[in-house]
Amino acid sequence: MGRRAIIAGTGALPGLVAAAGPAMVVRFADAPGGAEGADLVARFGQLGALFADLKAHGIDELCLAGAMQRVAFDQAQLDGETRALLPRLAAAMGQGDDALLRSIVAIFEERGFRIRGAHELRPDLVARAGELSGGAIATGDTARARAVLAAIGPLDVGQACVAAQGQILGIETLQGTDALLRFVADTMPGSGGVLVKRAKPGQDLRVDMPAIGPDTITLCAQAGLKGIELQADHVLLLGPEAIHATCQHHAINLWAVP
Amino acid sequence: MGRRAIIAGTGALPGLVAAAGPAMVVRFADAPGGAEGADLVARFGQLGALFADLKAHGIDELCLAGAMQRVAFDQAQLDGETRALLPRLAAAMGQGDDALLRSIVAIFEERGFRIRGAHELRPDLVARAGELSGGAIATGDTARARAVLAAIGPLDVGQACVAAQGQILGIETLQGTDALLRFVADTMPGSGGVLVKRAKPGQDLRVDMPAIGPDTITLCAQAGLKGIELQADHVLLLGPEAIHATCQHHAINLWAVP
Repeated sequence: MGRRAIIAGTGALPGLVAAAGPAMVVRFADAPGGAEGADLVARFGQLGALFADLKAHGIDELCLAGAMQRVAFDQAQLDGETRALLPRLAAAMGQGDDALLRSIVAIFEERGFRIRGAHELRPDLVARAGELSGGAIATGDTARARAVLAAIGPLDVGQACVAAQGQILGIETLQGTDALLRFVADTMPGSGGVLVKRAKPGQDLRVDMPAIGPDTITLCAQAGLKGIELQADHVLLLGPEAIHATCQHHAINLWAVP
Repeated sequence: MGRRAIIAGTGALPGLVAAAGPAMVVRFADAPGGAEGADLVARFGQLGALFADLKAHGIDELCLAGAMQRVAFDQAQLDGETRALLPRLAAAMGQGDDALLRSIVAIFEERGFRIRGAHELRPDLVARAGELSGGAIATGDTARARAVLAAIGPLDVGQACVAAQGQILGIETLQGTDALLRFVADTMPGSGGVLVKRAKPGQDLRVDMPAIGPDTITLCAQAGLKGIELQADHVLLLGPEAIHATCQHHAINLWAVP
């Protein structure tokens, strides 16, 4: 049995995954949020040092959890291994987030680390098919939003879509689900629509699983939505009890379908 | 040779089309903007009266120009012909804007009116292939944005898309291009990206041709974009000289491709 490290981004997920069992928490000092609370401090430009530190601590299992933003590498601070990886990362970056993450996963795996998904360590957080809070609202709108996501998912775009009364009111882009919901709140308040949230076909659930939290529910309420349909087994609930309570409070229905 | 009426919505297009030759201007009193300046006043709930009025004036050619918003019919005010058409309009409405417009066009055509597009009456306003202001900026971003639009266009969604550095920053939904550009300005300022604007495959250019104006250019500048790629022969320039001048002022490149 190996030793586990959590490569921690921002948000609630790193803490939820840390509660699954003993693990060393790694944070990047040059990431938004910084390295506070880390067991091991890393830097984006010094991946060689990170690999060596992880090996030195006997780590062979990694969980990448939480949001990471793209950062600019400081060219003057690169170690040799990062410099050698840079063309590969840059090429992947031009092909979208999925490609970049696949490339990062491959780089860790080539060095002998096993990647474990948050959904493997915390299966209790995974949305399973069925009614999660209130009943499912079956309308043409959810089908329409699913069709939009199915059409653009292969292009590595769109984890979420809002529809109301036969119309598409918003499609998630790089800025994420919260920004999508704020856009709908600003431009089409009170639509009574639905949010559909699903994984893209190319998405590696081990490192980039869609997730919602209580704040997502509050934003849906502020946007005037009535329901949220998740893709079963493909979305994490960052606090199932708090999510349920927030749904009840705002009279938002939440369910998951295959 | 018949007589022409312009069914006028909001924006600059009705005025530009009116300058193409003698025409009677029809406005809906219950539409946003009202009936000011109309030669003939119509109401959404009284389509039978509109058909009769148009016939009485010898109108056999119609140009639907300018933006129209969906309005709620006042059930108490419906004339018989509108009441008979309502199920058909409601069914089309549930299938999206393209279907609704196709249905409206068919309703006019069945009554003997010929529909003429703004682009037929003002061919000088149509964006033709080539460099319209500054040179074309050829990047992977325009190709990526085109791919997104091609994927969702058949679903009657998406006339415009913003991309920067390999990422999709926004996809137009019901709220329109201006709302899309404001979203990008708010969430990803200074991206240096491109706006791609194209017709959807099902779009009837006679009644719903994509259009840009000088304000579109200003919003692109505020969103930190560097270029705009239009679909040649499928987008109207609402004021070609003012658009060119605004592009020059903000150093925005504008071009059209097939």
